[in-house]
Amino acid sequence: MRATVMYSAGDVRVETVPDARLIEPTDALLTVTHACICGSDLWPYKSMEPSETGRRMGHEFIGLVEAVGAEVRTVRPGDLVVAPFAWSDGTCEFCREGLQTSCIHGGWWGGTDLDGGQGEAVRVPQADGTLVRLPVGPDDALMPSLLTLSDVMGTGHHAARSARVGPGSTVAVVGDGAVGLCGVIAARRLGAEQVILLGRHPERIALGREFGATDIVSERGDEAIERVRQLTGGFGAHSVLECVGYEESTLTALRIVRPGGAVGRVGVPQGEAIPSALPTFFANVTIAGGPAPARAYIEELLPDVLEGRITPGRVFDRTTNLDGVPDGYRAMNDREAIKVLIEL
Amino acid sequence: MRATVMYSAGDVRVETVPDARLIEPTDALLTVTHACICGSDLWPYKSMEPSETGRRMGHEFIGLVEAVGAEVRTVRPGDLVVAPFAWSDGTCEFCREGLQTSCIHGGWWGGTDLDGGQGEAVRVPQADGTLVRLPVGPDDALMPSLLTLSDVMGTGHHAARSARVGPGSTVAVVGDGAVGLCGVIAARRLGAEQVILLGRHPERIALGREFGATDIVSERGDEAIERVRQLTGGFGAHSVLECVGYEESTLTALRIVRPGGAVGRVGVPQGEAIPSALPTFFANVTIAGGPAPARAYIEELLPDVLEGRITPGRVFDRTTNLDGVPDGYRAMNDREAIKVLIEL
Repeated sequence: MRATVMYSAGDVRVETVPDARLIEPTDALLTVTHACICGSDLWPYKSMEPSETGRRMGHEFIGLVEAVGAEVRTVRPGDLVVAPFAWSDGTCEFCREGLQTSCIHGGWWGGTDLDGGQGEAVRVPQADGTLVRLPVGPDDALMPSLLTLSDVMGTGHHAARSARVGPGSTVAVVGDGAVGLCGVIAARRLGAEQVILLGRHPERIALGREFGATDIVSERGDEAIERVRQLTGGFGAHSVLECVGYEESTLTALRIVRPGGAVGRVGVPQGEAIPSALPTFFANVTIAGGPAPARAYIEELLPDVLEGRITPGRVFDRTTNLDGVPDGYRAMNDREAIKVLIEL
Repeated sequence: MRATVMYSAGDVRVETVPDARLIEPTDALLTVTHACICGSDLWPYKSMEPSETGRRMGHEFIGLVEAVGAEVRTVRPGDLVVAPFAWSDGTCEFCREGLQTSCIHGGWWGGTDLDGGQGEAVRVPQADGTLVRLPVGPDDALMPSLLTLSDVMGTGHHAARSARVGPGSTVAVVGDGAVGLCGVIAARRLGAEQVILLGRHPERIALGREFGATDIVSERGDEAIERVRQLTGGFGAHSVLECVGYEESTLTALRIVRPGGAVGRVGVPQGEAIPSALPTFFANVTIAGGPAPARAYIEELLPDVLEGRITPGRVFDRTTNLDGVPDGYRAMNDREAIKVLIEL
């Protein structure tokens, strides 16, 4: 079969790899119908050390079940399913608490041992705990929005939850990428009254406004902080969604949150430490978040997608096929595209 | 009047200062009956740059109201009152949210502009928002425990709340000082099932056990972390109370918390950044806390003190008078005493 392999920074290839197949009795085998490229795929795209074996890529996908192992109970051949960006058994104590990204028997797609989503087929470990059946067919117009449940919509939702967004909240979203834009959707969905989007790309800002952002702050650094304070009565936002991961963006997030407020961080941290130990302490700021337990959120978000109340699939502004994946990485890295959908 | 003034690291003097007096119509004037020395007073005792004017000390005190300004409504001369370690108006939006340490019109005792608690008298700004009347006289045996409501008991409680301690929680307390010991009380009071105290001073550990610690970990660094993991089924504690503030103790706290758990930090951070950005992210650890809104907690904790259900005053293991304050600093800094009570 063919799949995407990254060999070093900037070197993404689509090539023939061993066919995916069932190994464990808890596995399912999927043919992928839809996948995409994630902002977090750009971290290795910018920095990966050369590797001879390469690294299989992709952790967001929808597929058709082709076969299942003897112990799989919840999905069967012919089902269309969405996979969250981490796989999990659904039964360990962390899964039962809704923290599937810490599943004792779970893990992450791709790398050197597992298939990635950016390929023709995937072996899915722990299929019962991982996969969620979709009640529509693979040609349904909802596919882009359903695909975001594998990561970015769940991640935006996790940022909002971690930042304790609730009815009437004042929210600031740091980052206008796909996750930040989904954070805007999530914040409004949870009842936020004011949603300030920090970003500077016209087409992303425009989409952010359509998703419900009430204010845009395109300044940077101290000016951005001053502007958010002005927009929030001088005190900062109750809830800040950190959707980037750089130390600078984290510092901005921590400086625009109101005393007693919360920062939900979902951008993978690129720094070694969380800046601003003392000011955040004196302001009793809560810092929460991490990789979203997207699996836990699919049930909650799915009805809103199916009934059209939220349309996170609009973050996809380019569609390609498997051969177009390397150029998709380039386009996202060059900020030509917000997020690239892959139709297989 | 006489009061405690710190001039530089290690240089604490009791000397004559201008008499405290009413200035604003919202002030009360107290004669101090009980005060104490705080672990946080030891930070400047270790590191203060020399100052010609010096810095008035003390932020934990009980006193008798001598006089009140024209606008004061809730206390009157003759009342015995406890003051939390920050003063606050009780009416601003942060006070109404229960975050009095961020009061828009509030502030901190001592320094160069205000009286400190380690002196004969104190002018209390925003008396209505700040002071809480005590229903007992100044000779009552409960005075030591009531005095802890000004800081250490409220701070231990804040650590526990920030770390989301609840019924059945597994809790680890980093630090066996007065705040850590009050953290043990607070964790048990909130229903914790297992309370692991990290400390190595025999008399403190013994008191911690009496307060309800179920396990003691006296190792340090990696060994301490390994030991806590062993005691918690391999995963770490749901809730960790960071009651020290050093970067090393913070790192320990962040490494012994379970995925999805919370660290409540109440030790004033001595480092510039919060360590361990990436591991805490991948484990979805929540970092919360800061200076306790002790004022908010007094009403909640007071009945338990008055009715003897908690006895945080046992953290005082030495009593002195005003003249003995400099030696009290020395004794606490040398770890001869856990916490020194000052009777005036």
